[in-house]
Amino acid sequence: MTLSDLFEPDGIAVVGASATPGKLGNDAMSNVEAYDGEIYPVNPSSSGTVYGYEFVDSVAETDADLALLCVPRHLQPGVLEECGEAGVGAAVSFAGGFAEMGGEGRELQERIAEIADEYDITILGPNTAGYAIPGDDLYGSFVPRIREVESGNVGIVAQSAGVAITLSFHLTREGYGTSAMFGLGNRVNTEFADVIPVLDEDPDTEAIVLHVEGTEDVDRFLEVCQEAETPIVAYKVGEGADADFARAHTAAPLQADATYEEAFDRPGLVTVSSTTELLDAGRALADAPTPDGPNVGVVTAQAGPGIIINDSLQDAGAVFPKLTEETRERVDDLLEGITYAENPVDTGRPMPEFGQVVDAVGRDENVDIVLVYEIYEDSLGYPVAELEALAADVDKPILFTVAGPHEALRDEREQMEALGIPTFDTPERGAQAVAALVESISGSEGE
Amino acid sequence: MTLSDLFEPDGIAVVGASATPGKLGNDAMSNVEAYDGEIYPVNPSSSGTVYGYEFVDSVAETDADLALLCVPRHLQPGVLEECGEAGVGAAVSFAGGFAEMGGEGRELQERIAEIADEYDITILGPNTAGYAIPGDDLYGSFVPRIREVESGNVGIVAQSAGVAITLSFHLTREGYGTSAMFGLGNRVNTEFADVIPVLDEDPDTEAIVLHVEGTEDVDRFLEVCQEAETPIVAYKVGEGADADFARAHTAAPLQADATYEEAFDRPGLVTVSSTTELLDAGRALADAPTPDGPNVGVVTAQAGPGIIINDSLQDAGAVFPKLTEETRERVDDLLEGITYAENPVDTGRPMPEFGQVVDAVGRDENVDIVLVYEIYEDSLGYPVAELEALAADVDKPILFTVAGPHEALRDEREQMEALGIPTFDTPERGAQAVAALVESISGSEGE
Repeated sequence: MTLSDLFEPDGIAVVGASATPGKLGNDAMSNVEAYDGEIYPVNPSSSGTVYGYEFVDSVAETDADLALLCVPRHLQPGVLEECGEAGVGAAVSFAGGFAEMGGEGRELQERIAEIADEYDITILGPNTAGYAIPGDDLYGSFVPRIREVESGNVGIVAQSAGVAITLSFHLTREGYGTSAMFGLGNRVNTEFADVIPVLDEDPDTEAIVLHVEGTEDVDRFLEVCQEAETPIVAYKVGEGADADFARAHTAAPLQADATYEEAFDRPGLVTVSSTTELLDAGRALADAPTPDGPNVGVVTAQAGPGIIINDSLQDAGAVFPKLTEETRERVDDLLEGITYAENPVDTGRPMPEFGQVVDAVGRDENVDIVLVYEIYEDSLGYPVAELEALAADVDKPILFTVAGPHEALRDEREQMEALGIPTFDTPERGAQAVAALVESISGSEGE
Repeated sequence: MTLSDLFEPDGIAVVGASATPGKLGNDAMSNVEAYDGEIYPVNPSSSGTVYGYEFVDSVAETDADLALLCVPRHLQPGVLEECGEAGVGAAVSFAGGFAEMGGEGRELQERIAEIADEYDITILGPNTAGYAIPGDDLYGSFVPRIREVESGNVGIVAQSAGVAITLSFHLTREGYGTSAMFGLGNRVNTEFADVIPVLDEDPDTEAIVLHVEGTEDVDRFLEVCQEAETPIVAYKVGEGADADFARAHTAAPLQADATYEEAFDRPGLVTVSSTTELLDAGRALADAPTPDGPNVGVVTAQAGPGIIINDSLQDAGAVFPKLTEETRERVDDLLEGITYAENPVDTGRPMPEFGQVVDAVGRDENVDIVLVYEIYEDSLGYPVAELEALAADVDKPILFTVAGPHEALRDEREQMEALGIPTFDTPERGAQAVAALVESISGSEGE
């Protein structure tokens, strides 16, 4: 079993396609038609066209690699057999009412697993909203407007498709995107351990973020994470949730968060505790170089947010090294002795020399990671030119925390992102992203 | 000493006003000229006009209640004496280099304190970016574009003006605003304990949020917080920060966070641990009714985010009560037995009946607080009509957590806000806002 028919299907059949707006089979058609390849709406009760594609009666009449199953759960075993006979290699099963319901639902899921095994079909789901690879215009999902999700370099693999969708829209809303988004659902035969290695090989994916409730094969999951060369961030949830409610979701076993957190205590692997942190850590790991150590140099134009950053990072394993004599002299010259020239360096307020101060700290040999905070002022702007020169010369993560009227600073924020300088819009988010970078190089590899 | 000349000045003198763009005295003029009252640019070295106002040589020539001191620190004692002689009742001192520098700076601050005492002048600062009361078009600050900060019902009192500005722009960026924003700086004679009672009396302020590093008079601070009738949320920072750095900021004493957190363990007072939580808690307390108890009913259209919410609230003192038999029957009828009809209620996906499910849970007598999560779909929209009917009938907090393409859901989000239903855009932010409501009614009042 491979995932290639999910990632690069030569033709796509939408089984249960519908010409009626608002129906699941119509939403799925409207999303999948973005793809540059053959699209086959399959529905024996329909004729004519939908989105310009002619209805066919059966999967047998198609040349599809991938089938999106938009039919009720009871019809799925039959449809899946047809898919198998027709040579379909992958299917997305949207319907719920399988293992998460127990009883009859569990039997139905077992039947599907058998058919998938017999025909060697990779199944995403059941009980999922699907997946999306925006860079390939491939949206195997019924979620309206999923095509608005932008392409980016963070891959998302979520146990809950609802969380996958939420994360994807969150990234897009903030101006970023995803290389691939997978909602696993009930994981009948497509698990974290199947998707992660494919994303690890994907040149468009520079960090992988995971939403984990629980998985039957913890060992294989952890092994795959540890073998991946792409940085991975995991958000493990559910330990504190109501057990019956959690089980009724994707039929996942309840597992202690610590099982995952301990296993993640090694280089390249990071754990977080919210969706915002998950995406921020993913962006930082995707965009910034790997730091050489945990030594953080902070430059702030306002002391208060600098103290918040300093405070937030104390428990994160970050170190605030002394700056070298040379750096301190340069900073003293620039700041005329008025403000705080230790680390964090506080310039007191935005000023024309701010970029030079960042440059001085960024070039300090004691500093592995640079974190900057500055409220935007039109007359000064952000020090994009200085940051560009610095980023070209030093191979260190530089993170920039912004504040101010967002319309005004949007352009310069985008310019910094283009330089590989991740930006964040609260002091804590910047600090947490730095904490993720520090965590990504810690751990006890080889023990 | 009163703060009335800060809140309602009859005339404003900008001492050190400048016609040169980019100068502090020009920025302050450009902000203050929004105010509907007499404005006096004061500068003996300038003539002509700035922003249409004629320069005068001295504060003595003005009829100002309030002076914005845009002059270097060494000139401030002299200017302040002139202000006192001219009958000015309040002054904002922007310059740094006072007590936070120690030595000569501390002496200068003591001199200012004496003059203020002699002439009964309320001083905001020194070492502050000022304050703003957007509802009155009053911007006593040099921060560019501060006039873009919107009017709202959350009052901000921050020890660091940098944090005050950051919080104000943050609220505005997310579509909200502030009733008043104060950056205290060095607090020469205007402390938390002076500002909080005024905001408590202010009909436009429905919650007060505080950023606290440390204050000399902890007892008075805590007493004022406990006496206030307006809900208060405090973000205490600095315990983990570098001591020298923190002291170099607003000359604040370093204090244990626990001192504040323990004192805040009573009704109406809430502590948080980030700027985002601070503002979210402030919005929830300002907009939603006070809950009768800690019993949370969750309705989610997607199980995964529901589990995150459920998990996040377990440590927050929230209770997830059983729904009444009547509610369960109504929910069962609406959901046709397919999804999870306990609490959290999970509808599986957005559906036309979603608003009715929320209504059923909201009217349940076992439920004190309602938290909803739903990914937006155009064809269904958000259940604004049902929420309006529910909010009109039950006096409980209803919070709505949104997800999806933000352009699409903006209008309905604003409609919900107008109904007194605070909205949040990640599951954790919704959960933390509920946690703040639960914390606001806990504590051990009267002990």
